[in-house]
Amino acid sequence: MPHDCGFLADLSLSPDQISFERADRDRFATDYGTHAADASRPDAVVYPASTADVSTVLAAANDRGVPVTPYAAGSSTEGNAVPVEGGISLSMERLDEILAFRPDDLQVDVEPGVVGGDLEAHVATEGLCFPAFPQSAAFSTVGGMVANDASGIRAVKYGELREWVLELEVVRADGTVLEVGSKAKKSSAGYNLVDLFVGSEGTLGVVTRVTLELAVEPARTLAGRAIFDSLDDATAAITDAIRAGIDAATVELVDSLTAEIANSYTDSGLPSEPMVFFELHGRGVDREMDALVDVLRNHDPVRVDTAVEEAERERLWRARREIGQALLEYDPDRELEVVGDVTVPIGAYAEMVRFVGEVSASFDLPIPAFGHAGDGNLHYAILANLDDEDERERVSEASGRIVQRALDAGGTCTGEHGVGVGKREYLRREFEPAVIETMRSLKATLDPEGILNPGKMFD
Amino acid sequence: MPHDCGFLADLSLSPDQISFERADRDRFATDYGTHAADASRPDAVVYPASTADVSTVLAAANDRGVPVTPYAAGSSTEGNAVPVEGGISLSMERLDEILAFRPDDLQVDVEPGVVGGDLEAHVATEGLCFPAFPQSAAFSTVGGMVANDASGIRAVKYGELREWVLELEVVRADGTVLEVGSKAKKSSAGYNLVDLFVGSEGTLGVVTRVTLELAVEPARTLAGRAIFDSLDDATAAITDAIRAGIDAATVELVDSLTAEIANSYTDSGLPSEPMVFFELHGRGVDREMDALVDVLRNHDPVRVDTAVEEAERERLWRARREIGQALLEYDPDRELEVVGDVTVPIGAYAEMVRFVGEVSASFDLPIPAFGHAGDGNLHYAILANLDDEDERERVSEASGRIVQRALDAGGTCTGEHGVGVGKREYLRREFEPAVIETMRSLKATLDPEGILNPGKMFD
Ligand SMILES: Cc1cc2nc3c(=O)[nH]c(=O)nc-3n(C[C@H](O)[C@H](O)[C@H](O)COP(=O)(O)OP(=O)(O)OC[C@H]3O[C@@H](n4cnc5c(N)ncnc54)[C@H](O)[C@@H]3O)c2cc1C
Ligand SMILES: Cc1cc2nc3c(=O)[nH]c(=O)nc-3n(C[C@H](O)[C@H](O)[C@H](O)COP(=O)(O)OP(=O)(O)OC[C@H]3O[C@@H](n4cnc5c(N)ncnc54)[C@H](O)[C@@H]3O)c2cc1C
Repeated sequence: MPHDCGFLADLSLSPDQISFERADRDRFATDYGTHAADASRPDAVVYPASTADVSTVLAAANDRGVPVTPYAAGSSTEGNAVPVEGGISLSMERLDEILAFRPDDLQVDVEPGVVGGDLEAHVATEGLCFPAFPQSAAFSTVGGMVANDASGIRAVKYGELREWVLELEVVRADGTVLEVGSKAKKSSAGYNLVDLFVGSEGTLGVVTRVTLELAVEPARTLAGRAIFDSLDDATAAITDAIRAGIDAATVELVDSLTAEIANSYTDSGLPSEPMVFFELHGRGVDREMDALVDVLRNHDPVRVDTAVEEAERERLWRARREIGQALLEYDPDRELEVVGDVTVPIGAYAEMVRFVGEVSASFDLPIPAFGHAGDGNLHYAILANLDDEDERERVSEASGRIVQRALDAGGTCTGEHGVGVGKREYLRREFEPAVIETMRSLKATLDPEGILNPGKMFD
Repeated sequence: MPHDCGFLADLSLSPDQISFERADRDRFATDYGTHAADASRPDAVVYPASTADVSTVLAAANDRGVPVTPYAAGSSTEGNAVPVEGGISLSMERLDEILAFRPDDLQVDVEPGVVGGDLEAHVATEGLCFPAFPQSAAFSTVGGMVANDASGIRAVKYGELREWVLELEVVRADGTVLEVGSKAKKSSAGYNLVDLFVGSEGTLGVVTRVTLELAVEPARTLAGRAIFDSLDDATAAITDAIRAGIDAATVELVDSLTAEIANSYTDSGLPSEPMVFFELHGRGVDREMDALVDVLRNHDPVRVDTAVEEAERERLWRARREIGQALLEYDPDRELEVVGDVTVPIGAYAEMVRFVGEVSASFDLPIPAFGHAGDGNLHYAILANLDDEDERERVSEASGRIVQRALDAGGTCTGEHGVGVGKREYLRREFEPAVIETMRSLKATLDPEGILNPGKMFD
């Protein structure tokens, strides 16, 4: 349904901040997980350059009931940033300044459009890092990460992104500007509004400034890799390592099909076998590595490499980072239809991985699996020929079975990608109606006209 | 204002679950920070034994607009659990079961009335621990900790309590039972309701079940202590250690007056000098300790003890734990009027501590200061002769100055104790009216009749 966005011209924005051009509108019609057929074009694109701009646009849109969907780098996988009900796409790309860097506080204030990689480079000058970045940090933005509560491969040690968000400036649907949280590392002052906005996927407010906590670059880093004959051995080794309290920063699982796909994209030299990547941080990593290797050796590894050299490590992580792109390009006849993101209690991880294999076999679908295993997060992809009606149905059924299994184990349908459009059905499975209704009532309180990113989550 | 609670007799509760006795009502009239004159007696005390009981009581009280204030161990410092508007005190003491322990998931499900110490003993049987316990864990409950978002002396490494809460069963004011969160270590599924209830001090819902994440007991622990000539040296050493990325579990500051007070209570043998306690966890602690000692030595310590023996460590920590009680009993002519709990960015910590000393001098008040320095948290106590009008005024003015300084540094008025009654004024200073109004609107959404723990936070 098209919305009349002519009112934008009357606001205190300069003409170059508003576009009705088809090319611009097309650019904001998709994200990483959107198929051409599902694209939803906005009626207008607005490029705010300040908090005041955001406030002005929201207040005016709110008065007129026109949808506004924040859009950052568009790297979401579930249509999170796609304006499914049209209206305005609010581009974050001009809000891209690093506002203040306070190394002695281990803090940085940024505008939401700052790209992860740029922030990383900036804070590295003082020996600091942001350990919660997702794999996509090279192109995704701080605002998009905050809105999705993204997590990275270092979440095993450093936790979800939300744990690193101290303070937010957020504009409510009616244009009111809020500063929530504080610059203290911890606080019990009133309701925790920061964590309500983090992960709300642009449906409760537009983030215009973020204060992040930083970590000191680890004094030492060791990385390694273990290759196993069977996926069962690999997952058993992982769960044992967690149960033994190995202080790992990263524990990543890659199955043999994923390794093959990664190889077909860049020649990463990965053998097509189940494997575990790990990274340890800290001054005492040697002892920690010894303990980890002991655990791994209990599970008949084909090979364990420790103290992988920097160059080799970079090659491995690059292969890991590029899995997303490799999947998109793997099979010209198949599209990436499902990007799975279940997360289960660690004791259920091995069983979860095995179950994905069973589903793959019984539905006759290749389902490469990989993930941030150390925190129970399993990614998997279902590649499908979308012209084949029968195959589409099998994909949907297979995806539903996998998610249901994760939920039955007490887990979640999405560990880090968010709900967007793609996981709405699963959200309703994950929570009882009273919980969904509670979420809806919070939405109605903060955005009574329902203008912010409508059609998402439970909407 | 008394509320008619006769309706309780008509509910499906057994007679021994309801009390109108004066002795019982008195017991729920205070917390750790309440002076006799400020005590507020409930009209009735109810002892639910199940989630259904909680739901029944809330639904009935909600229909009648009768206040309900959850009460656990009553160890809060700001009147958090005191029923200032009367009505029903909802005692959590019979909801004290450990429901399920899943060591391989590093998880435990408990009822809210489980005492921290009991939980600790239980999970230790499988080599696990709950690293986010507050100092008061020996007597305070999981539910009270969740409601206050308590933190412990290990927060430097392990973070706030909220980071260890995975799933909650919560009863809303109208009696609806919600299960929020999941048993996955991380999730991006919908709004983060867990973190909205954590820290809400019983004003948004009553927690009836908690799933906590656990940690593996550290393979090795080293503890130590450094004594300094001056408080400035001590705080400079602390901030340097954090900036150097020392992976400490605990970094506690104790000033000379606090040491003296602790000594007067139990003979802990602490010298009356500024000192820093620290604890390091992990397989590689020796390297980490070397690095920490290097940092400490840069600040002219009088003495540094590392590798403090287990027995000595227990004696030190006991002295630290008992500071609360020691303060209460220190001076028979003075009551503990203010229990300070500001938290600031770590770069501002030294200055904050210095400022407290200046306030102490200029207001002629003894203000012992101590705190979880590693995360920027500073506790201080103001002991006052409450019969002396002038002194009371100085205390209030001094307290306000200290809090204002913390807020000016971007910090918070409460790092872990919560707002309750005592810090309401400071909450209004910490947040702009639009933020307070947003908190109020969330409260009105979840508790439209305003029956849950009224008169607290912004109320
Ligand atoms: C190859 C690849 C790898 C990935 N790896 C990971 C990973 O390891 N971990 C992970 O968590 N995710 C991963 N993702 C998913 C995605 O990249 C992240 O979730 C990322 O944080 C999204 O950021 P973005 O800037 O692209 O935001 P967008 O996709 O543009 O937007 C994301 C959501 O945030 C909202 N939004 C954007 N800006 C704001 C704002 N300022 N205020 C309020 N709402 C806003 C949008 O409306 C949308 O709902 C990956 C994606 C790809 C393609
Ligand atoms: C000596 C001493 C040391 C302390 N040290 C620390 C410390 O290191 N860190 C720290 O954070 N705090 C500390 N405290 C403060 C206090 O002990 C903690 O905040 C503790 O978590 C409170 O738990 P409780 O069981 O006593 O709860 P209570 O004081 O009984 O209640 C606390 C709040 O929770 C609400 N509540 C209780 N149960 C529920 C429930 N089931 N559902 C919903 N709401 C509920 C109450 O209404 C109240 O608002 C200390 C206190 C003392 C006396």
